[in-house]
Amino acid sequence: MDINNMLKKYASLAVKKGVNLQKNQVLMINTPIECYDFARAIAEEAYKEGAKEVIVRYSDQVIQRLTLENASIETLSNMPEWFSESYNKYAKEGCCVISISASDPDAYKGVPAEKVSAYQQARSKALKEYYELSMSNKIRWTVISVPTEKWAKKVFKDVSTDEAVNKLWDQIFKVVRLYEEDPIKAWDKHNAKLHEKLKFLNDQKFKSLHYTNSKGTDLTIELPEGHIWGGGSEYCYNGLEFNANMPTEEVFTMPKRDAVNGTVVSSKPLIYGGNVIDKFKLTFKAGKVVDFTAEEGYDTLKKLLETDERASYLGEVALVPYASPISQSNIIFYNTLFDENASCHLAFGAAYPINIENGENMTKEELLSKGANDSIIHEDFMIGTEDLNITGINKDGEKIQIFLDGNWAI
Amino acid sequence: MDINNMLKKYASLAVKKGVNLQKNQVLMINTPIECYDFARAIAEEAYKEGAKEVIVRYSDQVIQRLTLENASIETLSNMPEWFSESYNKYAKEGCCVISISASDPDAYKGVPAEKVSAYQQARSKALKEYYELSMSNKIRWTVISVPTEKWAKKVFKDVSTDEAVNKLWDQIFKVVRLYEEDPIKAWDKHNAKLHEKLKFLNDQKFKSLHYTNSKGTDLTIELPEGHIWGGGSEYCYNGLEFNANMPTEEVFTMPKRDAVNGTVVSSKPLIYGGNVIDKFKLTFKAGKVVDFTAEEGYDTLKKLLETDERASYLGEVALVPYASPISQSNIIFYNTLFDENASCHLAFGAAYPINIENGENMTKEELLSKGANDSIIHEDFMIGTEDLNITGINKDGEKIQIFLDGNWAI
Repeated sequence: MDINNMLKKYASLAVKKGVNLQKNQVLMINTPIECYDFARAIAEEAYKEGAKEVIVRYSDQVIQRLTLENASIETLSNMPEWFSESYNKYAKEGCCVISISASDPDAYKGVPAEKVSAYQQARSKALKEYYELSMSNKIRWTVISVPTEKWAKKVFKDVSTDEAVNKLWDQIFKVVRLYEEDPIKAWDKHNAKLHEKLKFLNDQKFKSLHYTNSKGTDLTIELPEGHIWGGGSEYCYNGLEFNANMPTEEVFTMPKRDAVNGTVVSSKPLIYGGNVIDKFKLTFKAGKVVDFTAEEGYDTLKKLLETDERASYLGEVALVPYASPISQSNIIFYNTLFDENASCHLAFGAAYPINIENGENMTKEELLSKGANDSIIHEDFMIGTEDLNITGINKDGEKIQIFLDGNWAI
Repeated sequence: MDINNMLKKYASLAVKKGVNLQKNQVLMINTPIECYDFARAIAEEAYKEGAKEVIVRYSDQVIQRLTLENASIETLSNMPEWFSESYNKYAKEGCCVISISASDPDAYKGVPAEKVSAYQQARSKALKEYYELSMSNKIRWTVISVPTEKWAKKVFKDVSTDEAVNKLWDQIFKVVRLYEEDPIKAWDKHNAKLHEKLKFLNDQKFKSLHYTNSKGTDLTIELPEGHIWGGGSEYCYNGLEFNANMPTEEVFTMPKRDAVNGTVVSSKPLIYGGNVIDKFKLTFKAGKVVDFTAEEGYDTLKKLLETDERASYLGEVALVPYASPISQSNIIFYNTLFDENASCHLAFGAAYPINIENGENMTKEELLSKGANDSIIHEDFMIGTEDLNITGINKDGEKIQIFLDGNWAI
């Protein structure tokens, strides 16, 4: 495998199919320092496509861990104005954003949860405008991954670091369809398939979904009137197509904030703020998590749910068949981008305005009144299993089997 | 050599002896991404010493070159407010700054000089407040180097990359006195020697210096009344000692802006904005460069001198004996931090306010009226040779030999 050539192809896919960069547009790249090769390849491709400017923001989890360990909660909570501006300015001016997701799953292991939480909270607040513009498709953005040594070793524990990195590259190239003769056409075909599912789900106008499996999940999620299922490529406010996640296998909508009831059991670990939360169970009443347990990362989960008033309510319902290629790899990636696309999932926190009719043009109050959730966080967690069943009650009161034994029944 | 252990010692030297970081102080680190190992080591040492927060700013010359090549002059000239703030805020609040100098001397070779110049100029303007606070010792700062592959290969062309990096490490460790049993004590001793020279020069109150050598240098530089020679460790406005350059071998003061006359010939290449300027000759009249030639980088030199109104006047006169350890290594480092400490040099652009009595408390207008130069640039260039003679006329009108055949005559 000629890695430089593959990197170039991958960068081109991110620029063209990911964010669909237009001539004279600014591109922002957010990346861990370890991934500078890929960031450089993206910048080169972007300029080739006529980018006005490429802004690269390097982050370093080792420095960040030192800061989390040593700085006071007060310092961690204090995000300077320039930091907000360094994101918000470009988003307001209509940039595209490529974020490279490649964190060390154990980066902040052992750091007191309240410090990580204070920092995450301050960061989310500082970047609220940027996140809102992303989540309402006012800007085109994509999340894409490359292996780092620590991440690869977490996924493939039993082989050498070099081999682990190569294996992770191989998995990534596979699921982002880079081995296909024409990756861009392969993405078009894949998107068309996802869009078919959307059409079915949107036509049914489900009032509620009921989840059950042998792990103990028994959860009813009502959907708000006017909800919209999304998935595959999306369209920016100005009609330009983009792929927010590469890979992506999910179709998703928003739940009715205060109408989720029952119990759900996690099926994969969730990495939050550099800490692992695993084997957890949540009980919902009128939309809110009223009880929970976790075999690993209980404190981190607690802090996550306490982030703000509505962090313990749901903002997303997503369907991914157990037969999806990422799921079939049987690999736990310890990275939401992959694990969420291997499994049905839900998300704590903010709903996507695009998941309700005309949501992009509603105020926050209007969205809340329609049943959408709002929070400074949006955190996916996995619940899909090979025996998950989902039935829906549609607009005519009919009971429809949507998932049977972990896969599409439609 | 246990490189990790050496890195730790080196980081400790930078934190303690370089910036003399105090408990609860913010440390800013500016570094090329290639040097992240050292940046992390510094951050760790800084937190050990009780830093309030360590802010690391990674830069990437490969991305920067792509931007210089592809972005318009208008885009390059447009520095956002957040960028200024991301430096100025911390400087105003009294941070320390460690800057890692390790650029690829050929990073921007072939990029049109007017693009590099537009960017450099905009950057200097955006950071004027930050630079002013540094140059007037309102904050404590240090410039220190670690090898990068490209830089090491430029210095040691004929060996493998690994060997070049090792050789450069060895040279650096030598000249920053890291091989000494107690590097901190070695620095104290070295500073004491430099301070002796300062005492002599300051007592003489020279009216002018006259430079001659066989290369064609015949230059007279008048010094303003009340000028002060500095060198070795300096003292921040609040009395705390720091070392702005590691290594440092120079003693320096400010010339009288409009009273430099004659011709001077360069003795080493000057790297400016990722381009090499070499073998150049400058003719001064009433302080200003009125004529110049350059065998390499003529356009870059021209742009440099045209940066602003006073970029073609001098702001610094520095004395370094030809016998200095860096000079004796006979290596051209292609890096100002080293090459300036191997050679007598001058600087285009701004003078240091600390080089005139009470300068730190003067307005820009007062400084100008005393004969100090002001510009958004400050660029050292080397003129020392083994046959350089310097004589001075002191306060009593006596002619004193200061340098004879490249070395101290006093």
